[in-house]
Amino acid sequence: MTGAASLPGVLVAAGHWDPKPWAAPFRADPERPVFTWPNLPDPALVHYVLAWAPPAEAFLGLPNLKAIFSLGAGVDHILGKAALPDVPVVRVVDPDLTMRMTEWVVLQVLMHHRRQLAYLRQQAAHRWNEITQPVARDVRVGLMGLGELGQASAKVLLSLGFDVAGWSRTPKTLPGVACFSGVDGMEPFLARTDILVVLLPATPATRGILNKSLLAKLPRDGALGGAVLINAGRGALQVEADILEALDTGALIGASLDVFEKEPLPASSPLWSRPEVVITPHVAATSDASVLAEGIHRAILDFEAGRPLKNIVDPKQGY
Amino acid sequence: MTGAASLPGVLVAAGHWDPKPWAAPFRADPERPVFTWPNLPDPALVHYVLAWAPPAEAFLGLPNLKAIFSLGAGVDHILGKAALPDVPVVRVVDPDLTMRMTEWVVLQVLMHHRRQLAYLRQQAAHRWNEITQPVARDVRVGLMGLGELGQASAKVLLSLGFDVAGWSRTPKTLPGVACFSGVDGMEPFLARTDILVVLLPATPATRGILNKSLLAKLPRDGALGGAVLINAGRGALQVEADILEALDTGALIGASLDVFEKEPLPASSPLWSRPEVVITPHVAATSDASVLAEGIHRAILDFEAGRPLKNIVDPKQGY
Ligand SMILES: NC(=O)c1ccc[n+]([C@@H]2O[C@H](COP(=O)([O-])OP(=O)(O)OC[C@H]3O[C@@H](n4cnc5c(N)ncnc54)[C@H](OP(=O)(O)O)[C@@H]3O)[C@@H](O)[C@H]2O)c1
Ligand SMILES: NC(=O)c1ccc[n+]([C@@H]2O[C@H](COP(=O)([O-])OP(=O)(O)OC[C@H]3O[C@@H](n4cnc5c(N)ncnc54)[C@H](OP(=O)(O)O)[C@@H]3O)[C@@H](O)[C@H]2O)c1
Repeated sequence: MTGAASLPGVLVAAGHWDPKPWAAPFRADPERPVFTWPNLPDPALVHYVLAWAPPAEAFLGLPNLKAIFSLGAGVDHILGKAALPDVPVVRVVDPDLTMRMTEWVVLQVLMHHRRQLAYLRQQAAHRWNEITQPVARDVRVGLMGLGELGQASAKVLLSLGFDVAGWSRTPKTLPGVACFSGVDGMEPFLARTDILVVLLPATPATRGILNKSLLAKLPRDGALGGAVLINAGRGALQVEADILEALDTGALIGASLDVFEKEPLPASSPLWSRPEVVITPHVAATSDASVLAEGIHRAILDFEAGRPLKNIVDPKQGY
Repeated sequence: MTGAASLPGVLVAAGHWDPKPWAAPFRADPERPVFTWPNLPDPALVHYVLAWAPPAEAFLGLPNLKAIFSLGAGVDHILGKAALPDVPVVRVVDPDLTMRMTEWVVLQVLMHHRRQLAYLRQQAAHRWNEITQPVARDVRVGLMGLGELGQASAKVLLSLGFDVAGWSRTPKTLPGVACFSGVDGMEPFLARTDILVVLLPATPATRGILNKSLLAKLPRDGALGGAVLINAGRGALQVEADILEALDTGALIGASLDVFEKEPLPASSPLWSRPEVVITPHVAATSDASVLAEGIHRAILDFEAGRPLKNIVDPKQGY
């Protein structure tokens, strides 16, 4: 695999994931050296690293490294590494991944809006009883994060009739969405949010943002009778002790969480058994590795054909 | 209320529902006689009956009856009555009602597509385990009924990426939807349907249509590993013994039912405790009575201003 190879080489450092599907499209290239961490006979051949939660050493001693590709939409698992080489870090932006996240968000919003957990409990008791429910236009959904994923969810939530707002770092104008931004925009945004949907990246500015102080700012008198938290951004955003307390005090009446401070969520976490909480095991946007790998492969072929890399993150902002 | 009244009168026969919100907009009209079945001192004053599952007698002996208004989208509870007067029967077509049905359909489709019931079971066991799941474009949703409600659901399901088809009595062309119609179109429609969403009216032609023979025509080898039945049309469409058998034999792998042969669903029904079935108590499109009543009031004012009635059903077709 070393030696006569003529194409720039790839190193796959897929963390606890199976590296095979990620390597596959590159192995199909004639004369492309493909390595799987930590098997790296000739570091000089590596031009690209494909990484998910890689060991810090995966980036070291690669004299010809041109770019790092995250295997997901987030890059917190890469930017946090000590001694990150000064090369572009590229993240996944993929229609399949975006659609899957949209499904998860819409499902969770509707579960709470339509009181599906309460209906399932009634069903378990063989109980036929109507629960009153507001019309969607009276329910204010607030998206924290209006990037690729937040905007896609906003569109479908709008088509379902919800009163949608969003919050981002930089100001935005989106049709039908009440847009708030920056530190100053946060309080008015929260004050008009019955269902808070979090699609933020984990960055130095957002870590621990879903805490007691934020949750206390959500209204208790909305059409659903309280506020709901839905988080598929990152576990690092949330202070789980504060979320549990908010569920106890009524600052929250429900939650759907796909991500956790520690993953897998420890079996001892009280979150598992809260009747008003939906737990999914970080699967909100799980996509076929082979589909995402093909996207990364295409991006690299484009780059090798002389076109600029897309979806490069800003290490200073952390996303 | 009788005597000097100058506006055409209204009789509210709201079955087991509270008649008050239905009568309210008419009571606000000056000089409109408003009666609530069976309190009817002067039948000659009644020009309109507002009816939900009315007693057959509610329509009798009304010499000046001009139209009957169903309090819901369906009219099976009216057309079935013996000695139905020969006046137009008008049904509810209301954006609020349509949106609520769309929410319910999208929620139930996503619950099965995203394996939410299985995730809830894992949650109860504090179990962190990913369940693989196809991408929406590989999942074929088939809508039986492409009327007001079917078409609205189709739009949102398309925006979520599902492969959507529909079946109606008369041929249709809808953007993005594979359209089938009539008796001949049914088998090819079923053969390409992983999630069957039923939004048909109950008519002589549709009663009992969701039976063993139909369920056997759904594919078992689709992307979800089997077929799912979602019915919010009418309970009269379904043969519940056949649905239970289909769940046993694997002809169905899941169901969401909002309507039942007998409502309330008897506590003894085995449907309640099937782990792959979601039961809701005929609430899929429950709307504020006052909102729907205002719509009927507007329709009557329009009619009294000389405009033709809209949303008249065809008694021969039964919907
Ligand atoms: N659970 C899962 O399965 C899963 C899957 C994929 C992704 N994710 C998570 O979802 C995140 C978002 O993905 P994406 O593709 O939508 O990212 P993106 O396109 O980069 O969007 C990020 C959004 O967050 C906003 N934001 C970032 N920092 C902020 C701050 N300090 N204050 C306010 N707003 C801030 C950004 O504001 P601007 O628009 O002003 O830049 C942007 O709107 C990923 O980073 C990842 O953590 C989770
Ligand atoms: N669960 C609830 O809370 C709830 C609430 C509201 C309504 N519903 C039910 O939903 C039903 C549909 O409402 P809608 O407003 O959508 O009615 P609609 O506009 O009249 O549409 C009915 C659809 O069914 C089709 N259809 C009727 N008979 C058929 C047959 N024999 N073969 C094939 N297709 C047939 C019609 O075909 P064509 O287009 O060719 O005419 C039409 O597409 C109502 O009748 C009611 O029973 C339930």
